[in-house]
Amino acid sequence: MPNFAPPGFTGSPLVRLDHEREHREYFAKHLTNPAARLLRLDGLTPDIVDGGRLGWHPFGDGDSQDDLALLGLIDSEPHFVPLLKIREDSSQRSAAMNAALNLLVPEDAATYAIARCLIDWHARHPFCPRCGTKTRVIRSGWARLCDPATGGCKAEHFPRTDPVVIMLAEHEERILVGRQKSWPAGRYSALAGFVEVGESIEEAVARELFEEAGVVATEVRYVASQPWPFPSQLMIACIAKVRSPDLTLQVAEIEHAIWVTRDEVLAALAGDPDAPFLPPPPYAIANTLLTRWAD
Amino acid sequence: MPNFAPPGFTGSPLVRLDHEREHREYFAKHLTNPAARLLRLDGLTPDIVDGGRLGWHPFGDGDSQDDLALLGLIDSEPHFVPLLKIREDSSQRSAAMNAALNLLVPEDAATYAIARCLIDWHARHPFCPRCGTKTRVIRSGWARLCDPATGGCKAEHFPRTDPVVIMLAEHEERILVGRQKSWPAGRYSALAGFVEVGESIEEAVARELFEEAGVVATEVRYVASQPWPFPSQLMIACIAKVRSPDLTLQVAEIEHAIWVTRDEVLAALAGDPDAPFLPPPPYAIANTLLTRWAD
Repeated sequence: MPNFAPPGFTGSPLVRLDHEREHREYFAKHLTNPAARLLRLDGLTPDIVDGGRLGWHPFGDGDSQDDLALLGLIDSEPHFVPLLKIREDSSQRSAAMNAALNLLVPEDAATYAIARCLIDWHARHPFCPRCGTKTRVIRSGWARLCDPATGGCKAEHFPRTDPVVIMLAEHEERILVGRQKSWPAGRYSALAGFVEVGESIEEAVARELFEEAGVVATEVRYVASQPWPFPSQLMIACIAKVRSPDLTLQVAEIEHAIWVTRDEVLAALAGDPDAPFLPPPPYAIANTLLTRWAD
Repeated sequence: MPNFAPPGFTGSPLVRLDHEREHREYFAKHLTNPAARLLRLDGLTPDIVDGGRLGWHPFGDGDSQDDLALLGLIDSEPHFVPLLKIREDSSQRSAAMNAALNLLVPEDAATYAIARCLIDWHARHPFCPRCGTKTRVIRSGWARLCDPATGGCKAEHFPRTDPVVIMLAEHEERILVGRQKSWPAGRYSALAGFVEVGESIEEAVARELFEEAGVVATEVRYVASQPWPFPSQLMIACIAKVRSPDLTLQVAEIEHAIWVTRDEVLAALAGDPDAPFLPPPPYAIANTLLTRWAD
């Protein structure tokens, strides 16, 4: 198998040390380490410094030591992020965010994805879904407790990750790409949808392909995965052989879809102006999926 | 590839019709259909009738029509479940539940998994995690709304599914199985752990293997997946080649672990009393994983 580029948002050098997070001494020890670093953010958009690196800074006088998460260690140095009150819609990418993604080196994009998912989850989950009480940060920033000391129900809550399947239907050497109305003109990509409760990856792929495009999957094979921090999905990329190329599009979801050949996919990935579509950006796993299928 | 039994909790004949759930007429139309069926439950344990089938019943005078979820259609008949206030710990299986699982035919176990995940999610998420307001059931039982009409923040909340990796480390024709202290005597299984925010499936497999057993993954391959309704995980089963068989066990998680050969795995799966371990139950994907590796 050729040596493909890893999917976007993977490859962070962060050591999570997740079994140590629950110990208060762990957090305190690292917070007082002079090598501790804090990520600067403007809303959810990270500070980026020369060379496309994340802007990590030593703690300064103006930096709050409350509501921090300890992501983990990079080169033995503790890396913290502030748990902000954010107002922006974290499922969307601002223009500044897109610009940042184009600048960041892959390993820093991966570390940023971890930070963003965590910050955003805290911002959107300050209350206990079981009893409605305000919760507080525990486990070095990796969970929230509905504290019985303040009337809570003792439930612990952990950051949420939603599995999503993203897939190419394949029929006789061609694959299916579709577009949503809101996308940039000319862009086509793999179809996708959330895995629901009580279904496997393979069942979710078959269900979504049938619902969105009316094609019947006969075989599903897994290709690759990536975290997607807008706001916090696990993207699971698959290829599904389908029985017939006849389409019945659910137009509310898929505005248009086309069957494309290997040469057409390679042209699109190469940025050929005559290609029949514009591909998804390189950090999206749909790009990885097209690349691996075409190779 | 041989034709293996599908993983447990897959293969439900339910047609989810998820794009119709949001329409109130959809729900109302199916509720008044004389063919509508309701699942009988004792807590979270399903009623089971002859032949290992789920106990679906026509609506009767005593059945509440409030707080129902419409799972979808089976053979064009609408299938509903009651959204109960449950008190039991849904991450555990009672003795009655284990007995039910041993009786249920696979396709009904799969439908039950959908029902259980949904019922349990509603029971544990009556309040809005964003603002703390009591939410109400919408989308035919598949979501909750923090209703602005009753002071809510308009957020919609969808059932949560937590991705979990479950994996066999592989080294020179042997695989690693481990046991937790709480398990039945002699049982060994694949190692497992939650996928965290900001990591891929492959990264989660490598992290968990290193943390729990001290082995370094050099290659991860996906094998299969299943939903796991205790309470609501997506189990993602993989095999990871590792650099060395030397173990450093995290004893808080893994009490003991052993490297076993293909013949030993086959003996365990066959119930041979001389096998070096007892395998996980057939409906667990760890059993699927062992079966597929050994074949």
